[in-house]
Amino acid sequence: MGRNPKARYAADVAEFELIESIRARCTQTRDDVVLGIGDDAALLAVPAGTLLAVSTDTLVAGVHFMQDAAARDIGWKSLAVNLSDLAAMGAEPAWATLALTLPVADARWVNAFAEGFAALAIQHRVALVGGDTTQGPLSITVTVHGLLPERFALTRSGARAGDGVYVTGTLGDAAAGLRQMQSQPPGDSRLLERLQRPTPRVAQGLLLRGRATACIDISDGLAADLDHVCAASSVSAEIDADALPASPALLAACAAGTRRAFQLAGGDDYELCFTASDAGSGDLLDALARSGCAATRIGRIGTGGGVRLRDAAGNPVSLPRRGWEHFA
Amino acid sequence: MGRNPKARYAADVAEFELIESIRARCTQTRDDVVLGIGDDAALLAVPAGTLLAVSTDTLVAGVHFMQDAAARDIGWKSLAVNLSDLAAMGAEPAWATLALTLPVADARWVNAFAEGFAALAIQHRVALVGGDTTQGPLSITVTVHGLLPERFALTRSGARAGDGVYVTGTLGDAAAGLRQMQSQPPGDSRLLERLQRPTPRVAQGLLLRGRATACIDISDGLAADLDHVCAASSVSAEIDADALPASPALLAACAAGTRRAFQLAGGDDYELCFTASDAGSGDLLDALARSGCAATRIGRIGTGGGVRLRDAAGNPVSLPRRGWEHFA
Repeated sequence: MGRNPKARYAADVAEFELIESIRARCTQTRDDVVLGIGDDAALLAVPAGTLLAVSTDTLVAGVHFMQDAAARDIGWKSLAVNLSDLAAMGAEPAWATLALTLPVADARWVNAFAEGFAALAIQHRVALVGGDTTQGPLSITVTVHGLLPERFALTRSGARAGDGVYVTGTLGDAAAGLRQMQSQPPGDSRLLERLQRPTPRVAQGLLLRGRATACIDISDGLAADLDHVCAASSVSAEIDADALPASPALLAACAAGTRRAFQLAGGDDYELCFTASDAGSGDLLDALARSGCAATRIGRIGTGGGVRLRDAAGNPVSLPRRGWEHFA
Repeated sequence: MGRNPKARYAADVAEFELIESIRARCTQTRDDVVLGIGDDAALLAVPAGTLLAVSTDTLVAGVHFMQDAAARDIGWKSLAVNLSDLAAMGAEPAWATLALTLPVADARWVNAFAEGFAALAIQHRVALVGGDTTQGPLSITVTVHGLLPERFALTRSGARAGDGVYVTGTLGDAAAGLRQMQSQPPGDSRLLERLQRPTPRVAQGLLLRGRATACIDISDGLAADLDHVCAASSVSAEIDADALPASPALLAACAAGTRRAFQLAGGDDYELCFTASDAGSGDLLDALARSGCAATRIGRIGTGGGVRLRDAAGNPVSLPRRGWEHFA
C-alpha cells in the first residue's frame, strides 16, 4: 500500500489548488445542498415523497476517449454520459461527485476539464458536491444523483405487447464521427460534436414520466440496449430498420449499409429508447417535438423475447457487428 | 473517443459475467433500495427528516496500493476508506456504488476483490446498488451514501476554545506497516493488517452524534487533518505528542522518534479525531470504550489558529515530515 487516498502528487498544495480550480468553475448552487465540498462528506436534503436516483460511469483515456482529446470535451462528456442515465429514469438531475485521476497536476488541463464539466452542470442545475483527485493514469468517474416523484420512475421492465417503440433524436452520428475522426482529413464537425459533446435527453426524460412504459438510454447501440428492455420486460421487439432516424450529416457521410450498422449498433448515441401505448402517444410525440428533440416510432413490442429487425418491405435484417472500434 | 462508457473488454459477455460475479457476492439487501443493480440508475428511498451524506474516494494501483496487493484486501480497503468518511460525519452507511477499472477481465481477481468488499459491506449493512466496470489501468472509485438525522451531523467547523481533542484507537500503525512491508523479512502482521484492512469507526461516529463538537477522519495524518478542523472552526489546537495512543505492535516496532513521526503524520490510520466540551466527556469516553474502540484525550482547543505540538514536559515538538512513501 502506498500513499493514503486523500494525499496525492508531489505536494498537497497541488491537490488543493486543483480542487479549488474545479470548485471555482463549478458554480452551480442549490438550496438542497446543506454542506458541499470541504468536509468528509456532502450533506444533501432529499424532499419527502421523492426517490433518489444514483448512477455512476467511468471514462478511461485510450478506451473511451483518445489520450489527446480536448480536456473541455472530456469534462463535458464525463457528466453527459451520467446525466443520460438519469434522463432514462425520468429523474431530475441534482448533484454530482467527481473522481479525477491524473498523471500530473496540470492546472491548464484541469481548468479546461472543469469548464466543460461546469458548462453542462449549469445547464442542468447540477451542483458538484464532492470528489477526489488522485495521481495515476487519466480516468474520470462521475456519480450523479437525481430526484423523481415516487411511482414515476421509468424502468426497463414496463414494456407491454402492443406498445410502440420510439427513439429520441437521431442514431449513428457518434459512430460515424468516430470513424471520421480516425480518417484524414477530419470529417463533418456535426458528427464529431455528437461524439465528443453528447446531449443528455434530460428534458425528454421528464416528459416521458407517467407516459412511457419503459425507457433506456442508448449507450451500447440501439439493438443491444433495446434487448435489455426486452429481457427486463419479458417481451420481444420488432424494429423497422428503415425507420431509424438519421441526421442529414449521417446521410451525407455514409452509404446505406454502413449507416444502418451505425444506427443499430454504433453506440455512444445517448438518445432515449422508450416504449409507450398507442393511447396518448400523439400528445407525447407533440410534447417531445416542442421540447426541441422529436421522437420517431421505429417498431412495436410483441410477445416472446429478443429484438427482431426487418426492413420496410418486411424482409429480415441481420444485426451488424458493432460499429465502434477501441484503442485499448 | 473510443468505445462507449458502458461496453468494455473483448466481449460484453465478459463484462456481464464480472458484474454478475460482484453482484452474487455483495448480498446485503435493504428495504430502502427500491431498485438496485440492473437499470440505468438505482432508486433509493431516503426517510423524511433524514439527510443524505455522500462521499467518494479513489484507490489507484501503484499509488494507493501495490500492483500485486491481494485483491481481497483492495476490495475491503476501497470500501473502508469511504465508510471512514461517513463515520466522520456521524452518518449511518446505507448504499455504495463501485466503479472498477481493470486491465483484463480476470474472474478470479474480481471474485476475491468482491469478497473483500462484501465482507465489510455486510458488517455495515451497505447495499451495493450500482457501478461500472471498465477496461484500463487498475483503479477503484467507490461512492458511499449514508443517512443521518438533521442537526446531528459532525462537521469540521464546530470546535470551540476549551474543548478537548481526542482520537479513537491508536495512531501510526499503518505507516509502520507500510515501512515493514517494504523491508525483508515482512514485519508484524498486526501492523500490516491495519494498513491493508483498516477498520472504519462507524459505530464510534454514531456515538459522537450530538456529543462531539467537530470530527474528521485521519487519512492524511493527525497533524494535517487536525489542521483542517482548526481552519474550518477558526481555532487552534495544542497537542501533547507524548499522549498519542500507540499500539503494542507499534511500540515494539519503532524507536520513539519514528513512532512519533508515524503517529503525527503517517496517514492511512482511518481513526476519528474529534473535539468535545469537558461537560459529559466522561460519559462519552465510557460509551466509546464499551463500543470496543476507546478514545484518548490528546490535547485542547484554543483561540487563534493552527496546530501546536508539545511533549509531556511542555517543550515544543517540530512537525515531522510525512512518514509515508509512494510508488508513483
